[in-house]
Amino acid sequence: MDGADRVDGPNEEHSVKVLVLGGDGFCGWPTALHLSDIGHDVTIIDNLSRRYIDVDLEVESLTPIRPIGERVSVWQELTGKKLSFLHLDLAQEYDRLVTVLLESRPDAVVHFAEQRAAPYSMRSAKAKRYTVDNNVSGTHNLLCAIVETGLDIQVVHLGTMGVYGYGWSGSAPIPEGYLTVKVPTPDGDIDREILHPANPGSVYHMTKTLDQLLFAFYAKNDGLRITDLHQGIVWGTQTPQTALDERLINRFDYDGDYGTVLNRFLMQAAIGHPLTVHGTGGQTRAFIHIKDTVRCIEIAIDNPPSRGEQVKVFNQVTETYRVSELAELISRLTGVEVANLPNPRKEAAENDLNVTRDQFVALGLNPTTLDEGLLEESREIAKKYAHRADYTKIIARSVWNKGMETAPDLMTK
Amino acid sequence: MDGADRVDGPNEEHSVKVLVLGGDGFCGWPTALHLSDIGHDVTIIDNLSRRYIDVDLEVESLTPIRPIGERVSVWQELTGKKLSFLHLDLAQEYDRLVTVLLESRPDAVVHFAEQRAAPYSMRSAKAKRYTVDNNVSGTHNLLCAIVETGLDIQVVHLGTMGVYGYGWSGSAPIPEGYLTVKVPTPDGDIDREILHPANPGSVYHMTKTLDQLLFAFYAKNDGLRITDLHQGIVWGTQTPQTALDERLINRFDYDGDYGTVLNRFLMQAAIGHPLTVHGTGGQTRAFIHIKDTVRCIEIAIDNPPSRGEQVKVFNQVTETYRVSELAELISRLTGVEVANLPNPRKEAAENDLNVTRDQFVALGLNPTTLDEGLLEESREIAKKYAHRADYTKIIARSVWNKGMETAPDLMTK
Repeated sequence: MDGADRVDGPNEEHSVKVLVLGGDGFCGWPTALHLSDIGHDVTIIDNLSRRYIDVDLEVESLTPIRPIGERVSVWQELTGKKLSFLHLDLAQEYDRLVTVLLESRPDAVVHFAEQRAAPYSMRSAKAKRYTVDNNVSGTHNLLCAIVETGLDIQVVHLGTMGVYGYGWSGSAPIPEGYLTVKVPTPDGDIDREILHPANPGSVYHMTKTLDQLLFAFYAKNDGLRITDLHQGIVWGTQTPQTALDERLINRFDYDGDYGTVLNRFLMQAAIGHPLTVHGTGGQTRAFIHIKDTVRCIEIAIDNPPSRGEQVKVFNQVTETYRVSELAELISRLTGVEVANLPNPRKEAAENDLNVTRDQFVALGLNPTTLDEGLLEESREIAKKYAHRADYTKIIARSVWNKGMETAPDLMTK
Repeated sequence: MDGADRVDGPNEEHSVKVLVLGGDGFCGWPTALHLSDIGHDVTIIDNLSRRYIDVDLEVESLTPIRPIGERVSVWQELTGKKLSFLHLDLAQEYDRLVTVLLESRPDAVVHFAEQRAAPYSMRSAKAKRYTVDNNVSGTHNLLCAIVETGLDIQVVHLGTMGVYGYGWSGSAPIPEGYLTVKVPTPDGDIDREILHPANPGSVYHMTKTLDQLLFAFYAKNDGLRITDLHQGIVWGTQTPQTALDERLINRFDYDGDYGTVLNRFLMQAAIGHPLTVHGTGGQTRAFIHIKDTVRCIEIAIDNPPSRGEQVKVFNQVTETYRVSELAELISRLTGVEVANLPNPRKEAAENDLNVTRDQFVALGLNPTTLDEGLLEESREIAKKYAHRADYTKIIARSVWNKGMETAPDLMTK
């Protein structure tokens, strides 16, 4: 972990005022630091719900993340850069949100403030309802508040590749948001550009398909400038900024609800736990390293749509892999075996995935690809904090329908 | 108004247990009575929000609707048929909803419990937020509760023609929910059936496009049996059941937010107010009489999708007219002049509309078309209660964007 990608001193020329909603989370925190590091004036807004959910699930980040107040002061102390934090619930505190917008007059809002785990969103009626109510009301409150203030604030939202579903478009690559189809009419086929049809695989993914319709309406009716980033599965933990000091360390989720596949394998390998593959592992998924996530947000802020333009959609992914390929790769590197478990999700056993992802590269993203060095780096972090792991939290227990089978614990501490 | 369409005595053979959510509203109340009349076991669930909104807007139904408790007792008294009412907020009282479902074990739930006025939904940030939060949480709570109870309850939901937008599909008629399009791939075009792309014209219409995605997900993931009815603009006031006694009379909205176009013209004609056409009146809209609405709900209940089948979508409309044609017709019948006012909506000045509506007719609907007798009947009701009108509430004042022009009051009492 080095600081080579860090910028020394603020770059006032391109400095913009940015609110990072959900800036205490796994993607939000490194994004806030990256944007601060390149000279933007950053305020983090978060309701800390991700930490509350950890309390409810009786689990913690494998890495020892510090309270947000401490995180923010350490960053300021070490870099001399200003970073603020405001505890505000986007879905619940609309009037305060309006006040904050009017007082801070941001150029851009980066919106990560949604419940983001598919398994958690299927866990219980309570979790389903929280995911829908929080995500929809939060996004709508933001759009509504921007209209109410009359400010020309750009919105950059984190979507998901999961809005597209898998295998819908045959051999055609998944486009970036929009698709031109032929519609039959009595006068022959006509071409129409449509938002790619929604095929969400969980309540969580569904909320991002709802967000898309909210964005389309507010862009059309109110001319809001919105970019929706359909991200793949993020892997890795640290960015140059979060690696500056242990007190700035990023979250590392390994539990059955929030742990995502590649990081979960790395953590399992670090503690010698079998690599848990659900079903055959024939599912192909899209990936991106956390270092690229933060760069993509920077690029999206620098390239807003014009007022009156439709929502800009980028696919925020750099590579695709089959889950089984990744498991085999990690198994080969570490000697840890693969365990094929029942799949708690309702999904196709196997799928191909071919994703268009040209826009970010054209705008200057230099993709970080999966290499052994980076895998090793994440595994080292997992090893360093392995003593913090609760082995009873590793197996995925949230199921898509009542009565679906899950595996017993494979390893006890 | 006669009772010829009424059924004498319950028809136990086809009797099903139905909850009518939003059963105190303009469509909900006559539906509840119709379903009770044909022998179904009906419980009305309503949060009375439509009455509360009247309080907030300082307006009342032109017709003197009675409190829901009185309405229900009068119906029972007159017909000997059981009808219950439960004051429950679908969006706010999830746990009670689950209890009600478990205790009543309904065969079907008819879901009208949404904020349903487009102008109201654009009126203010508060109204936009209420519309989204209430409509999305209400629909999602219902779906979630059905899954949680494990009961096989059919859902019949009132959607809107407004999900489709106008003019999207060129000369092709708007299909009933689904559309087969050609998607280009490297191996040639492939056919894909998609939900008709969403083109909502207001926050209210947008919520019904969100509902569609909720339905699609819960039908796919949980096998829920759901029918979505994309209804046109309802006109008329009474059904044979609501006409039985003045204490059963249906609502008649004439104000700028809740008054819909044809009924608004009839009320305006009755009091000699100019017929308020927004813009050129070149907007073509789809219509249905309230007597057909209640029949369509009956038919939808009788023809549920199977478990595992996709959401059934019907277009619940019988005719289409240009707004200017209707104004001219009413003007000719009544001698009241037409006033072309600024359009407070963001919409095309003119559009054609060609709607597929074969399914209900195939299932036995005998469409009530716009005839002078029925127009006269509605005008008589408007005349009878004209003394109740507040003339300052007639002009539409809710605008789609800040600063859009509206007309001054055209007539004072």
